[in-house]
Amino acid sequence: MSGRLFVVGLGPGSPDQVTPQASAAVAEAKFFYGYKPYLDRLELRLDQTAISSDNREEISRARAALARAAEGETVAVVSGGDPGVFAMAAAVCEAIEAGPAAWRNIDIEIVPGVTAMLAVAARIGAPLGHDFCAISLSDNLKPWDVVERRLVAAAEAGFVIALYNPISKARPWQLGKAFEQLRTVLPAETIVVFGRAAGRTDERIEVFSLGEVDTGKADMATCVIIGSPETRAIPRADRPALIYTPRSLASQ
Amino acid sequence: MSGRLFVVGLGPGSPDQVTPQASAAVAEAKFFYGYKPYLDRLELRLDQTAISSDNREEISRARAALARAAEGETVAVVSGGDPGVFAMAAAVCEAIEAGPAAWRNIDIEIVPGVTAMLAVAARIGAPLGHDFCAISLSDNLKPWDVVERRLVAAAEAGFVIALYNPISKARPWQLGKAFEQLRTVLPAETIVVFGRAAGRTDERIEVFSLGEVDTGKADMATCVIIGSPETRAIPRADRPALIYTPRSLASQ
Repeated sequence: MSGRLFVVGLGPGSPDQVTPQASAAVAEAKFFYGYKPYLDRLELRLDQTAISSDNREEISRARAALARAAEGETVAVVSGGDPGVFAMAAAVCEAIEAGPAAWRNIDIEIVPGVTAMLAVAARIGAPLGHDFCAISLSDNLKPWDVVERRLVAAAEAGFVIALYNPISKARPWQLGKAFEQLRTVLPAETIVVFGRAAGRTDERIEVFSLGEVDTGKADMATCVIIGSPETRAIPRADRPALIYTPRSLASQ
Repeated sequence: MSGRLFVVGLGPGSPDQVTPQASAAVAEAKFFYGYKPYLDRLELRLDQTAISSDNREEISRARAALARAAEGETVAVVSGGDPGVFAMAAAVCEAIEAGPAAWRNIDIEIVPGVTAMLAVAARIGAPLGHDFCAISLSDNLKPWDVVERRLVAAAEAGFVIALYNPISKARPWQLGKAFEQLRTVLPAETIVVFGRAAGRTDERIEVFSLGEVDTGKADMATCVIIGSPETRAIPRADRPALIYTPRSLASQ
């Protein structure tokens, strides 16, 4: 008896950014596994059960969800944003690869969502309008020197950079260090955006220059976008400036 | 009199991946500007008007939409996927910056969507589960040597690479040349995914190795994902292999 496992992206937070496909998966599942703030977004029925776990327990959460699905149940693992971007889809794959053979027979459906960088970008213009990259700043799962090397390589190559997991209580200095490295490559006036809770009532979007960015204004729910030297601001009289990266790049 | 302009992402193609926010914007707008295949996805009312243009006419399309909004109308510019990723949001910003001052007073709302790489990734596992980048392979708007430099820099730094606009009648050789460059950095067994129409009835997802990839199977609607050396396949008996990139990277 093999059950079904949805790995669902709930989008950045606003209910009107949850896809119908995600809503349908949530309606269908009986058991829900996730980090509590994401589970709290669901309005579950009495016949549905939520099992929350901490945000650094992805593998044990994935294993618990797979074990439940292997019993023949319909299960959902939920992520904010998109489950494939620094979220639960990779953890579920890791657990399947290392787990019992029967888990490979579970019907897995990954439901994509609007990931944070897209939601933040949409609120201020089009900073990701040219080539870009996404880097998790967490050094829990990779060595810090790899993070630094990637930041410098991306900046030197002209990518706009979106940073996920920029800061936490356990990782307080990494974001400052990242900006320090980037300042060795990028001009001080490079545009930096901190976006938090994009599209929600508690949204906070702030724009800095790389030379004057205040890391104290970021928290673990912030997505940081660092422009390329091409990224520009369009001032507007009664509205926030539009921030965008032109599609074109002239010969250099 | 200043109108309103939505820049709407319609997602990868399936109606159940269109967000409620996008559907609401479509319901509200009177005039729709876009590339015809995207406009064809809309079910417009008799009081709504679609104005289609070719897929290389982004700036003139943006200008026409802004001019209409400046007349006080509610207008939508539509993109497939997310409008901020190699799509109309940057073109609209460019047109605003170069256009009449009154255009800065238009109420612009950018509606994010599920971009192609997320939809393709979701259909096969979690290839974007670690640091990744997105590169448009089109050299219409940037010099080809910049594209090559970015490909090599991203591969050397360990990013998974998503390629948008990989090939077209006017750009027949670039994808092959990109793979040629990547083979100088990445092992021949690196996993390459071609994803087309993810989530639609005409979906086509194919997995190759970098050493044996067949560029003839890509077209302009294909999103190409090139794994890092860490990207792995989990074979399954009665289902396609799951392709994923582990969250962790050991010290190197």
